[in-house]
Amino acid sequence: MIVGVIGGGQLARMMIPPAVSLGIELRVLAENANESAAVAVTAVGDFREAETVVRFARGVDVVTFDHEHVPQEVIQAVVAAGVAVYPKPEALLYAQDKLLMRERLGNLGLPMPDWARVTSVAELESFLLEHDGRAVLKAPRGGYDGRGVRIVSSAAEAEGWLATEGELLAEELVGFRRELAQSVARRPSGEIALWPVVESIQRNGVCVEVIAPAPGAAGKLADLAADITVTIAEQLDVVGVLAVELFETTDDRLLVNELAMRPHNTGHWSIDGSTTSQFEQHLRAVLDLPLGATGCRDQWAVMVNVLGGPNSGSLSDRYSLALLDQPTVKFHSYGKESRPGRKVGHVTAGGDDLDDVVYRARAASAFFGQST
Amino acid sequence: MIVGVIGGGQLARMMIPPAVSLGIELRVLAENANESAAVAVTAVGDFREAETVVRFARGVDVVTFDHEHVPQEVIQAVVAAGVAVYPKPEALLYAQDKLLMRERLGNLGLPMPDWARVTSVAELESFLLEHDGRAVLKAPRGGYDGRGVRIVSSAAEAEGWLATEGELLAEELVGFRRELAQSVARRPSGEIALWPVVESIQRNGVCVEVIAPAPGAAGKLADLAADITVTIAEQLDVVGVLAVELFETTDDRLLVNELAMRPHNTGHWSIDGSTTSQFEQHLRAVLDLPLGATGCRDQWAVMVNVLGGPNSGSLSDRYSLALLDQPTVKFHSYGKESRPGRKVGHVTAGGDDLDDVVYRARAASAFFGQST
Repeated sequence: MIVGVIGGGQLARMMIPPAVSLGIELRVLAENANESAAVAVTAVGDFREAETVVRFARGVDVVTFDHEHVPQEVIQAVVAAGVAVYPKPEALLYAQDKLLMRERLGNLGLPMPDWARVTSVAELESFLLEHDGRAVLKAPRGGYDGRGVRIVSSAAEAEGWLATEGELLAEELVGFRRELAQSVARRPSGEIALWPVVESIQRNGVCVEVIAPAPGAAGKLADLAADITVTIAEQLDVVGVLAVELFETTDDRLLVNELAMRPHNTGHWSIDGSTTSQFEQHLRAVLDLPLGATGCRDQWAVMVNVLGGPNSGSLSDRYSLALLDQPTVKFHSYGKESRPGRKVGHVTAGGDDLDDVVYRARAASAFFGQST
Repeated sequence: MIVGVIGGGQLARMMIPPAVSLGIELRVLAENANESAAVAVTAVGDFREAETVVRFARGVDVVTFDHEHVPQEVIQAVVAAGVAVYPKPEALLYAQDKLLMRERLGNLGLPMPDWARVTSVAELESFLLEHDGRAVLKAPRGGYDGRGVRIVSSAAEAEGWLATEGELLAEELVGFRRELAQSVARRPSGEIALWPVVESIQRNGVCVEVIAPAPGAAGKLADLAADITVTIAEQLDVVGVLAVELFETTDDRLLVNELAMRPHNTGHWSIDGSTTSQFEQHLRAVLDLPLGATGCRDQWAVMVNVLGGPNSGSLSDRYSLALLDQPTVKFHSYGKESRPGRKVGHVTAGGDDLDDVVYRARAASAFFGQST
């Protein structure tokens, strides 16, 4: 069983432990040999070059992804070379292009913020007029962690950007109570396994904390999140892990915000908090192996991202203090140099008392020095 | 933080996941590049050659072990080269030489089976006379998993072996109710953390199943196991994980059977069953990082070894069936070719109902085809 991963970031890195456990050979194509997933890097090259990627893909059982930036034509070349790729390019497309995603989910009748494709200042002005003069503008392709997203209150603010991009996705500014995320894994043969819906706390467009399961979400809300996510997984024929980010609105609706077709920050809690982590499950899913149980190991799990900051010094300097202070918290380093705002790791705490679990996770994270 | 591990077996392999999580660089010196810990192998060579090992050790923060077969003079050469080695050679000696171990533990007043150093047929006959005509004979050095151990009822049976070895350890055949094992981790600075005492079920001298914690052991028995183990760890100045195998005798005593100064088969349950696994804890201990919490994640954890057998075919053939049948069980492959009786992996189940946990772990293991 050999899995090839395109991209050497922390998602590829976090696939290493379950690959070791399951006896899966992991091969990673990275842009540099010293990336986060360095231990498993077997090829260095540009994921935008079909020749490089096809060469990498030869001899693996399945190709999957650390990120969604691999061009469609490159993925198609791998498929044409006879190597299985999951998620398939036809599915991944909807995680790569937010406009196509909105169109497709709209056709499926799934609940979303109001949205429009805008290609001109006039169209944006029209959208603003219909939405209280404010809109969330998104680049259809290439954004992540809040990059490629702006809130505007006049078309003039986006004129240059619109000219550069050619088209933008405009969305209503949703009045939401909180953000939720629902992850699922799906095999080519159709088997599906869902983790509980979680609450995701964002700051400056970056996920900083996740509570699993989402407090108070059991029952109707959880069922709705699951229904939406299973519909997307099945209708888009997603294989591997799919994470759906959702708004829980102030008027009690769930709206689809974003999709990711890979292990996702909102699922990192599952490494320590679920019987089967999203990284193990992703490997099982893309290899079409039976999926593992997705129950919670504790009543609550709380994950807090560790962000690099100007005052944090080196990670290892603060390691001892954090481990000493929080012996029950699990640490996950991404093996990256610390830069302000960069995700350099995460911590997860678990237990029966949510206040205590949140406290321990935040306390452990705080030793790493950064509060955004 | 760079840890060098001498030996590329499954113990080194199982250090990879926590090394990835903690951001520790793991370097492994293996005899062959395709050994169990292949992912982390950075040097191939003979651990019996001081030059090879010293070259490997240069540039790491600490050297530790996958097995206890590294000669003392080789370890001393690493120490002389100025590289920290844990456990220190002076401690490891007692895990390498069973006669020295018996002498030392005897001096510490720890409870053990009756034993004697026998260097002649006459001495063995004398020991047999005093112990109902039966004795367990052990080669002082180099044995493991029942190798180097024989039960004899006449000195003649061991005459040739004795002549070859020069000296043997003779022990009384202990009437025991069951075997227990107590693992502990200790830092150079003295901090100690104990896991609960576990029950170890052996067949043909090989551990086949572990129940954590040992049923009915809470209280006096657990306290005694902990006391014995902490005494050994402190008096022998052990750094890293120490596992003490114990007999619970039919007359309610605990006797020390064997020592291991490394992660041990009886502690594999901790990967899935404890907040901190023995592999993570060993890395933290040898790096003198604060130790993690050692509580159980479920009321019970049961680990069953997967042994290669004549009828088992390839592991991967049976993988799907096992995963399908037991979605809650965690699988750990050692990346080894299956051979009769060889440990090629293990499975761990957890939960609140011991009968159910044992059932699930055995069921998962059974799919791999071997019952010894």
